[in-house]
Amino acid sequence: MRYCFGVDIGGTTVKIGLLEESGAIVDKWEIVTDTSEEGKNILPNIAASIEKKLEEHQIDKADIIGVGVGVPAPVTSEGVVNGTANLGWKYKEVKREMEEMTGLKAAIGNDANVAALGEMWKGGGAGEKNMIMVTLGTGVGGGVIIDGKILVGQNGAGGEIGHLCVNYEETDRCGCGNRGCLEQYASATGIVRLARQKLGQEMRPTILNKEDVTAKDVFDAVKAGDEVAKEIAVTFGRYLGYGLANLAAVADPAVFVIGGGVSKAGEVLIPYIREPYMERAFFANKNVKFVLAELGNDAGICGSAKLVLDA
Amino acid sequence: MRYCFGVDIGGTTVKIGLLEESGAIVDKWEIVTDTSEEGKNILPNIAASIEKKLEEHQIDKADIIGVGVGVPAPVTSEGVVNGTANLGWKYKEVKREMEEMTGLKAAIGNDANVAALGEMWKGGGAGEKNMIMVTLGTGVGGGVIIDGKILVGQNGAGGEIGHLCVNYEETDRCGCGNRGCLEQYASATGIVRLARQKLGQEMRPTILNKEDVTAKDVFDAVKAGDEVAKEIAVTFGRYLGYGLANLAAVADPAVFVIGGGVSKAGEVLIPYIREPYMERAFFANKNVKFVLAELGNDAGICGSAKLVLDA
Repeated sequence: MRYCFGVDIGGTTVKIGLLEESGAIVDKWEIVTDTSEEGKNILPNIAASIEKKLEEHQIDKADIIGVGVGVPAPVTSEGVVNGTANLGWKYKEVKREMEEMTGLKAAIGNDANVAALGEMWKGGGAGEKNMIMVTLGTGVGGGVIIDGKILVGQNGAGGEIGHLCVNYEETDRCGCGNRGCLEQYASATGIVRLARQKLGQEMRPTILNKEDVTAKDVFDAVKAGDEVAKEIAVTFGRYLGYGLANLAAVADPAVFVIGGGVSKAGEVLIPYIREPYMERAFFANKNVKFVLAELGNDAGICGSAKLVLDA
Repeated sequence: MRYCFGVDIGGTTVKIGLLEESGAIVDKWEIVTDTSEEGKNILPNIAASIEKKLEEHQIDKADIIGVGVGVPAPVTSEGVVNGTANLGWKYKEVKREMEEMTGLKAAIGNDANVAALGEMWKGGGAGEKNMIMVTLGTGVGGGVIIDGKILVGQNGAGGEIGHLCVNYEETDRCGCGNRGCLEQYASATGIVRLARQKLGQEMRPTILNKEDVTAKDVFDAVKAGDEVAKEIAVTFGRYLGYGLANLAAVADPAVFVIGGGVSKAGEVLIPYIREPYMERAFFANKNVKFVLAELGNDAGICGSAKLVLDA
């Protein structure tokens, strides 16, 4: 039996998985992300944790194919990070360092891209080679998979789909400094923003509370038949569907996988996205499927494992 | 010395090139595209022309690496076409047929994508591996090159950048049936449309003639300092620059190569595109270069040759 490790580095914890080559998770655990001193302990801590786990499971290092790592920052195709918002790293040759520390082959990718790869391997996109994952969380992230491989791009910034402009008339600014980014409408934060705008000018009865509304509240209210909530969902879905239609014209996917916290609302989301998508999609892209992500928090460890298996 | 053939099938003529492996063009010529009887003679005519040329140059078939073919239709990664607007083909296994007819390895791609590959190999994108070519002709076509390879997509419709929506408020329809496609503003036809709109409501003197204006007239007038023409160029460049900013957020290119008939206006075009691009681009994509295409009509034969060399 051969194995590999999948590592998903986050700002507070590092998730690590030991997987069989087939993708079955043998063990998974977390360690704290030590961001002190420019994050210099992060990779050594991962390497030590891996050594310990090999001992625990009595697995020979020769049976390990490699270690894949997802990082919350752009990662070049050479496995280099040029700076991170949350880890303290500046320029860092993550692939080289990881290989030196573990004695294993390493492959490094952006966390959102790697999660997309995981969903293609074992989740909502299983069986497909051309896939776009859209992660609707605090922000909107994503990953574009072309012919089974992550679209990395020149600066490791491929698939930054949260910053597609979907509304050139927007006057509010996105966190990135632009106006009209998809993230302003389709993230959990964006949905709250849409809900507040709507509720501020709404006279009809609604179970939503303007002062204290979450993205989950909106979709719970949609499920309860609340008309005001449904109109918020229509606005959300229109921007997202239009954005995905533009994405499809570039990347021509077989399937969109919708993940992140907002996607926990479930299948109710899909028609709100699909309908405006179909209205705007180029004819060659109309046969695309929309599915929900399936791996949840395991997408990162599965995808980073797949990254090194494919390397 | 080893060689390959590059074939660029158009609706009226087929351009064919005999190239050295290095990319040097040994010979190039054209044959008529026989679209009669559902285009059944097109591939046999190409195969016959190749045989004749091998004889003429006294080159042994064993020294030919293969034949690359660009087709004016979506082409799947298996070299299959599911229908064409101009050639009469319905479902056609172009790769298989071409290989059977010539006895050579064949590789088939969409013509705009293949032209992009040519520009990456020997033209404006030389030296880069992540490149987007934008072809501003009667329509707007393009090709997205990721890590040196064409982004083909699930249906062979990757890089259909003429149908990115850049104006959600547009009321006129694009040829594709949508509204607000990049093609409606940045193609030669689109520029004429913008010019007519502008000239219809313009009181200032201009050297442009509302009844008879071409895209070339507009950029000639820009070069002559005509203020009205400059404002048309600003509108053209804004839609194109905004569209390219969205493209960059997905594909993260190193360089945009601007080609097609409109690009013959020359370097004067670039600032009109770059400025709105920089205004809208995600921060990670601001270091992109803008260059003009260099291969003109040879992009297709060069790119299709490269396609088979890489296959």
